[in-house]
Amino acid sequence: MRALVLCSGGIDSSTCLALAVDKYGKDNVVALSMSYGQKHKKEIESAEKICKYYGVELYKLDLKKIFQYSNCSLLENSTESIPKETYAKQLEKTHSQPVSTYVPFRNGLFLSSAASFALSKDCDVIYYGAHADDAAGNAYPDCSEAFNNAMNTAIYEGSGKKLKIEAPFIKENKAGVVKKGLELKVPYELTWSCYEGKDEPCLKCGTCIDRMKAFELNGTVDPLLKNSIN
Amino acid sequence: MRALVLCSGGIDSSTCLALAVDKYGKDNVVALSMSYGQKHKKEIESAEKICKYYGVELYKLDLKKIFQYSNCSLLENSTESIPKETYAKQLEKTHSQPVSTYVPFRNGLFLSSAASFALSKDCDVIYYGAHADDAAGNAYPDCSEAFNNAMNTAIYEGSGKKLKIEAPFIKENKAGVVKKGLELKVPYELTWSCYEGKDEPCLKCGTCIDRMKAFELNGTVDPLLKNSIN
Repeated sequence: MRALVLCSGGIDSSTCLALAVDKYGKDNVVALSMSYGQKHKKEIESAEKICKYYGVELYKLDLKKIFQYSNCSLLENSTESIPKETYAKQLEKTHSQPVSTYVPFRNGLFLSSAASFALSKDCDVIYYGAHADDAAGNAYPDCSEAFNNAMNTAIYEGSGKKLKIEAPFIKENKAGVVKKGLELKVPYELTWSCYEGKDEPCLKCGTCIDRMKAFELNGTVDPLLKNSIN
Repeated sequence: MRALVLCSGGIDSSTCLALAVDKYGKDNVVALSMSYGQKHKKEIESAEKICKYYGVELYKLDLKKIFQYSNCSLLENSTESIPKETYAKQLEKTHSQPVSTYVPFRNGLFLSSAASFALSKDCDVIYYGAHADDAAGNAYPDCSEAFNNAMNTAIYEGSGKKLKIEAPFIKENKAGVVKKGLELKVPYELTWSCYEGKDEPCLKCGTCIDRMKAFELNGTVDPLLKNSIN
């Protein structure tokens, strides 16, 4: 068995990578990162560091042109700013429609690209880090269990029953992801999450807030914050 | 309602385009063509001609890098030749596994790219030309009804219930597609199907054979052949 891991350089996908390496061995794992015009493209440097740490080969694709007409606030050519509040507050304003950082069908595109790539690289399974907190309230509908199940069936059927998706955290919240990662000693100091992509995490965007809280709920502090305090 | 049509320049997608224009009006239809390293990239010239004929704006994406490690015989960097026989004969040799011109999860990737693109362009539906003859015997599993249904659910759920797929020929054979297109007066003389992509159709590859037969079953001759006879 060989696994391809979608690796953004964040908490969730880095923990996925640790799980896949633990299960299949590093020589049976490859990673794939996407540029898509994101403001926080520095996350890809984190993906490189994490893959280097685990001794896993990292491939990169550029899908930016596909989003050239999107005004999603996560994209560098957007006229919108990244909201500086919790997802719960954002969802009150959107009336439970996807938040402004939802990149149109991004996970579907990433999984499909990964499927085409994985079949060329003789992989049997794709790992990715979707979790229940991101799907909650329809913030990111392409993280939902309904989406994941359908996408898994599409990839299984469309590949001639050669390839499946594994989404180990699909029923888990972000604190659960971090709990698993702490057990596996994932080097979270190498990861990056903040949507602003500046020198230090902004600590105000939805993903910064969720990240801090996930460490707090595990009775510890995000090593990225320890670094910036020290 | 606005529709995005996946437009390869062949029979099936050109008939889809005619259906979408008939239903929504040309100003509510956009088309999308993909370069993916195919040997018959001249099909894109046909997509341009067809879209010009219908007065529909055509967008293009280059997904070639995603298939860089595939040795699928349809791709220009493959070491394999395109088989010169019917799909039925090819399937005897592959023991009902996908044929050598199956591009790994191509339709999944195309539909996902189309979904990201369509959401940015305020479209509500994606049209594509998958039909039962291509799915038969597992030749192209990403044309099957099981794949299509799952992909439709994935796109509907993953888009926050904003976008659907319409595959008008999913239960139809290629003769049925041509029948519909003849009714709609699709200018089939502008289309291209042959996988070799040379000056004239090779008349020996699986898609040439299927194309000729589809016209014969409608009691007529492919206008591309009329041209090459004249």
